[in-house]
Amino acid sequence: MKNILIASTSTLANENYLDYLLPELQLHFQNCNTILFIPYARPGGISHKEYTAMVRLAFAKINKEIIGIHEFENTKLAVKKAEGIFTGGGNTFVLVSQLYKNNLMETLTDVVKNGTPYFGTSAGSNICGLTMQTTNDMPIVYPPSFQTLGLVPFNLNPHYLDPDTTSTHMGETRETRIKEYHAFNTVPVLGLREGSWLDIKGDSITLKGNLTARLFRQNQSPEELESGTDLSFVK
Amino acid sequence: MKNILIASTSTLANENYLDYLLPELQLHFQNCNTILFIPYARPGGISHKEYTAMVRLAFAKINKEIIGIHEFENTKLAVKKAEGIFTGGGNTFVLVSQLYKNNLMETLTDVVKNGTPYFGTSAGSNICGLTMQTTNDMPIVYPPSFQTLGLVPFNLNPHYLDPDTTSTHMGETRETRIKEYHAFNTVPVLGLREGSWLDIKGDSITLKGNLTARLFRQNQSPEELESGTDLSFVK
Repeated sequence: MKNILIASTSTLANENYLDYLLPELQLHFQNCNTILFIPYARPGGISHKEYTAMVRLAFAKINKEIIGIHEFENTKLAVKKAEGIFTGGGNTFVLVSQLYKNNLMETLTDVVKNGTPYFGTSAGSNICGLTMQTTNDMPIVYPPSFQTLGLVPFNLNPHYLDPDTTSTHMGETRETRIKEYHAFNTVPVLGLREGSWLDIKGDSITLKGNLTARLFRQNQSPEELESGTDLSFVK
Repeated sequence: MKNILIASTSTLANENYLDYLLPELQLHFQNCNTILFIPYARPGGISHKEYTAMVRLAFAKINKEIIGIHEFENTKLAVKKAEGIFTGGGNTFVLVSQLYKNNLMETLTDVVKNGTPYFGTSAGSNICGLTMQTTNDMPIVYPPSFQTLGLVPFNLNPHYLDPDTTSTHMGETRETRIKEYHAFNTVPVLGLREGSWLDIKGDSITLKGNLTARLFRQNQSPEELESGTDLSFVK
């Protein structure tokens, strides 16, 4: 049975890393002593080692041990044997390139579909969709494909941001970008605001946090979904 | 001799499409009756035909005729024979994919290096750099490569936006994204604010408009460059 948390962001403004999610994470990883951390998204270009050290500190608050996947020679085996898995945020292009380079995409999909608890934030959430094509990140490396884990039958836009109606900036709003995506693609896109997350248990996909999420479908007006909604109808 | 205008944006807030650049465009295209328009970036997903009609209206104000490249059967020949070329903004991934699909990247580079006047805005400016890897756009289609025209020996970030110091949003700032680019790449990046453009005549690259531009280099602090600066030292 799938057991997945997909969070828009790791950190809320003026809070420490992961703090707002720690009660949820304690429940989510209740049967794990050790969690495999995938630091491949390298926020700000930090090393796998530095990133893992930071995550280790946060998870120590709920008495979970963190092991970085880069500490293993056989990363595929590390994924297969993991009690739980966390993929952190950063750059989605860098993350996806490294997952393909290490030939991990399929294995990761398999273990999570078979019940290994998974937690993703930001880029680590983006890869839970069918493709990474609604990421906000810059294409700083060229991945062999945009296809991702497909743990949910739609795409995600983490850090979803409403248009700033006072702005004179002429760059596209997030909504415009997602509408452009739908000029070329049929997959629904869920805009997940900071502070929201999806809690997936088997076939149910529940929107959590205090905010609504914005659902975009091709040729339809966007729809606001209330916290608590079961999103299993979205496909 | 190269003769290129690279603009951050087509449109300033509360102005009509291309209005602020019309005096500059009149000079730039003074020897052209007809300009070949490349509508491949399809902003908001609009069709090549719709996009070309909009551009035709703007250029009529300076008595230039616009022909869309999609109106030609042999697009490579259209580029070779063009008196002047304009590539409009939209989605850089869509633009670059279509240029590769039509096998136009090399031809376009050749004619512009040999003196055909070129004008780009936004996505059409992005492709003037060595790669499209500092675009702000969503990866809504998968291009065969991120390599672009290389008309300047650096990369561009159009619609460059300074960090909003009052924001509580935790998504990366533009500066953070460009710094991440430099964790993996050595090519300098020029952040071009809306209202700025580069005027390239042969080997000189002059920053124009009222604003400064922000230059990012690997392992160096960003630098503000005054309007009027010759950027031919950036490589």
